[in-house]
Amino acid sequence: MINKLIQRIIKLEAPIVVGLDPMLSYVPQHLLAQGYKEKGENLEGAAEAIWLYNKGIIDAIYDLVPAVKPQIAMYEQFGIEGLKAYTKTIDYAKQKGLIVIGDVKRGDIGSTSAAYATGHLGKVTIGDKDYRGFDEDFITVNPYLGSDGIIPFIDVCKQEKKGLFILVKTSNPSSGEFQDQLIKERPLYELVGEQVAKWGDLFMGDSYSYIGAVVGATYPEIGKELRKLMPKTFILVPGYGAQGGKAEDLKYYFDKDGLGAIINSSRGIIAAYKQPKYEAYKEEAYADASRQAVLDMKEDLKKAWVKN
Amino acid sequence: MINKLIQRIIKLEAPIVVGLDPMLSYVPQHLLAQGYKEKGENLEGAAEAIWLYNKGIIDAIYDLVPAVKPQIAMYEQFGIEGLKAYTKTIDYAKQKGLIVIGDVKRGDIGSTSAAYATGHLGKVTIGDKDYRGFDEDFITVNPYLGSDGIIPFIDVCKQEKKGLFILVKTSNPSSGEFQDQLIKERPLYELVGEQVAKWGDLFMGDSYSYIGAVVGATYPEIGKELRKLMPKTFILVPGYGAQGGKAEDLKYYFDKDGLGAIINSSRGIIAAYKQPKYEAYKEEAYADASRQAVLDMKEDLKKAWVKN
Repeated sequence: MINKLIQRIIKLEAPIVVGLDPMLSYVPQHLLAQGYKEKGENLEGAAEAIWLYNKGIIDAIYDLVPAVKPQIAMYEQFGIEGLKAYTKTIDYAKQKGLIVIGDVKRGDIGSTSAAYATGHLGKVTIGDKDYRGFDEDFITVNPYLGSDGIIPFIDVCKQEKKGLFILVKTSNPSSGEFQDQLIKERPLYELVGEQVAKWGDLFMGDSYSYIGAVVGATYPEIGKELRKLMPKTFILVPGYGAQGGKAEDLKYYFDKDGLGAIINSSRGIIAAYKQPKYEAYKEEAYADASRQAVLDMKEDLKKAWVKN
Repeated sequence: MINKLIQRIIKLEAPIVVGLDPMLSYVPQHLLAQGYKEKGENLEGAAEAIWLYNKGIIDAIYDLVPAVKPQIAMYEQFGIEGLKAYTKTIDYAKQKGLIVIGDVKRGDIGSTSAAYATGHLGKVTIGDKDYRGFDEDFITVNPYLGSDGIIPFIDVCKQEKKGLFILVKTSNPSSGEFQDQLIKERPLYELVGEQVAKWGDLFMGDSYSYIGAVVGATYPEIGKELRKLMPKTFILVPGYGAQGGKAEDLKYYFDKDGLGAIINSSRGIIAAYKQPKYEAYKEEAYADASRQAVLDMKEDLKKAWVKN
């Protein structure tokens, strides 16, 4: 799956993943009305509206980018109905040829991590048949519990030829509270990064490992260090755009060949129609605004991304 | 809710939480058969069997313990159908007067943590009505992202009078890989513990904070240190029993008044019928074996728990 991701990035000239993190406040009125009309003004109707919203965005961008990254929290907030919309979004995105990175940030000990891995990347056997729960291509995971929390995920990745992005340095303002603490004069995120590189050796793709890292766009100097420390690790970079990360800063996250990183934008693309820049697109044309925002992001990233 | 938890612990003389972490291999044959017969030999049938299994255990133990702790990963592995069983389990446990600690170990940045908090502890407004997603009383959360990943959870706790247990030192063998790293000669878990105590000041109950900590039973010396460092923090202690934590070691986790901690047992109780000790209980009487295991655990914990 990491090989496929890289091939798609090269083919589309777009190291871009679109974050499908729908807030109800982003969903255009006509889709809310449709969802409520079809399913009721309740959790089911709200989830339906979110699904319709996502479908519109996927239809508008699937030929431009290699991947989407639904943030499961945004669906989980609507309970079971929200998670049904999460599943429908994953299935539809895959049907349109997109790679799906489930931003689930799971992580627990041994058998519990194994259960998460099964639910999101693997399959359960019931009777003599196999069934899949959520079936993302990649998921994000949290490293705080150490190797025996991570290895069960890697085991399932090997069986399924799927991958992980493990949190190393997150994009939020207080990420440094623990991640930047010095251990023998080196910050914790470097220690985690080194460990991610080691875990990565357990399952290598053609040029990069199936086991990637998350490093926020908001700390470019740290990105530079981590790029060197994890030479075979593909980096998922959140924090571009709305959170303040600039394209110029992203050059550090890429390798000389222009690969090695994929940049996420969520709000900046899915709620583009709410920005002054895209106000010519009315609410009904929100998906066209998203498409234009992807094209603009692709152009903007040329400042950072040196093509082969 | 922390006040209610403490009152129930005192009344029942049981600082015990039963971990509802069902593996399909724990579920007795007659319940599997019933689930498959009613819903089909598929994800739905497996989830039904798990729900029936949980219901039996809840019916057998609800008058003995203050709380249950369903581990969401075990449900998530069956996708949407599994999560429906998670929801039914929560609703039923609450109906029987149990406090529910959702072991979800969520954690993300700002608005995403807010969405998780909404889904698990709070409510969403749709039209002019409020709806709840999963509705646990407490959840576990991961601190790796720092304050702006935690504060949104605390905000919802304040609105709902609910609580958290934040991971400080986990019970697994490799928990030390990052958690034990020395920062200015002090391990990371102490730094996290101090921060949990500070976060705890933001929402105090009568004697302990609504914001608790997770500290594994498998590291009693660390438990002792953390107990001192977090005097107003209620500690959720996994790792007793099957993972190797002994009652004698647990005294360090309690305060002088015998309060301050609640000990989790999962497999040791829910799959008691599979242990040689309880073999007199046949598979059909699995719930009676679970009840006896709770009574035995209560007795065993007297070695650690000094009643007022």
